Amino acid sequence: MSRSQPTPPAAAPAAKPSRAQRTRERILKTSLDLFNTYGEAQVTTGHIADELNISPGNLYYHFRNKEEIIQHLFRVFEQQIDVAPNLEKQAEEGIGDVGAAMEDLWLYLHLVFEAIWTFRFLYRNLDDLLARDAKLKSHFNRIVEHKRKSVVTLCGGLIAAGAMRAQPDEIKALAENILVVATYWLNFQHIAQRQVFRADLGEQEDLGRGVFQVMALVAPYLVGPAREHLDHLSRNYID
Amino acid sequence: MSRSQPTPPAAAPAAKPSRAQRTRERILKTSLDLFNTYGEAQVTTGHIADELNISPGNLYYHFRNKEEIIQHLFRVFEQQIDVAPNLEKQAEEGIGDVGAAMEDLWLYLHLVFEAIWTFRFLYRNLDDLLARDAKLKSHFNRIVEHKRKSVVTLCGGLIAAGAMRAQPDEIKALAENILVVATYWLNFQHIAQRQVFRADLGEQEDLGRGVFQVMALVAPYLVGPAREHLDHLSRNYID
Repeated sequence: MSRSQPTPPAAAPAAKPSRAQRTRERILKTSLDLFNTYGEAQVTTGHIADELNISPGNLYYHFRNKEEIIQHLFRVFEQQIDVAPNLEKQAEEGIGDVGAAMEDLWLYLHLVFEAIWTFRFLYRNLDDLLARDAKLKSHFNRIVEHKRKSVVTLCGGLIAAGAMRAQPDEIKALAENILVVATYWLNFQHIAQRQVFRADLGEQEDLGRGVFQVMALVAPYLVGPAREHLDHLSRNYID
Repeated sequence: MSRSQPTPPAAAPAAKPSRAQRTRERILKTSLDLFNTYGEAQVTTGHIADELNISPGNLYYHFRNKEEIIQHLFRVFEQQIDVAPNLEKQAEEGIGDVGAAMEDLWLYLHLVFEAIWTFRFLYRNLDDLLARDAKLKSHFNRIVEHKRKSVVTLCGGLIAAGAMRAQPDEIKALAENILVVATYWLNFQHIAQRQVFRADLGEQEDLGRGVFQVMALVAPYLVGPAREHLDHLSRNYID
């Protein structure tokens, strides 16, 4: 399920990418790896060019500066985290199978955590990064508000399906807590020096712990088969 | 309830602080203000000396470098966030008045958020700061683990008093979510450009929103009068 390399849009022609396009992609990929490994603040365009064995001039031909590289990476992140554009629509139209809805939600959150993991450098010093770039900040907040709306709509769908019991005030507070935990859980693990990526378990299992933490926020409001199904899905993360 | 200036320990002699002690205190206070306003990364010892109208040499007489100032500020923070050293003991000995326990908990969380607010620069780029200083990192994680233990003990006390219903697994997940929300809520507000400090409301009311968010995590597990009392305390933060 590696998503670190952006796939071209479906409508793109199948033409072979040009040499310039390939270099551009390599710069983005290498920058992402270096930012994630060393922290964005510690990496210069010089380091990136060096790692790629290209001249700084060649790099500047593709990207004027580091900020432009970050902006491009952020755009890919923005596409990737928009994992289920139809989620709200589905919830509005009515949830038929509550068990399937729980599994969809689990998968959805997993894809969100994968996007955060892939672009984790963005979250390491989010405050500095967004303070430096107003456009990035407004895009980030747009993502957050979109996710907040999705949570509220989804809770509405679960309530309509008889799978959740919660007052509008509770949903509002729940949505805020879901956003805080989803945004910072990975960072919190990093600070506590807990290994999130473990070669023996694979990336997936440990990111599942983040999904479990978010689902634990929702769990007390679920009733009947939805709650049972969630408890079943959560079992692997309880020790 | 302003706590931005550390008070001397109660046992200290009432002797007037020396000129050197006063300069030292002024350096710490000014550094804290500058770090909070501009971000720690943007402030040099030169800026601090400048703001205080003292020579860099004078500053270096008191603190060898910026890291030493940060370490001292962190120590004050560490003392301040240890707001209720007897909280665990009280919970272990048995909670008599559940309503009073809810109010104590609310006040306790308020003091925690005040400490985080006073030293908010630490939280802005926590990852960078802790990556640079292993001692700071280990102290920070010690605080986190101590708070985690307090939460678990407190939940045990509430369960024994018949005020909470939760399984050990639920308490474990709840404690983790409480720590993530308490650690990052203020930061999340800052990124979303929500004003936390509002002159018209005073500092207290808005930090109360953070307390409300943490209490909202606990609420679904409370039963009977404890739940009613919490709903009463929360009413101001629901709109």
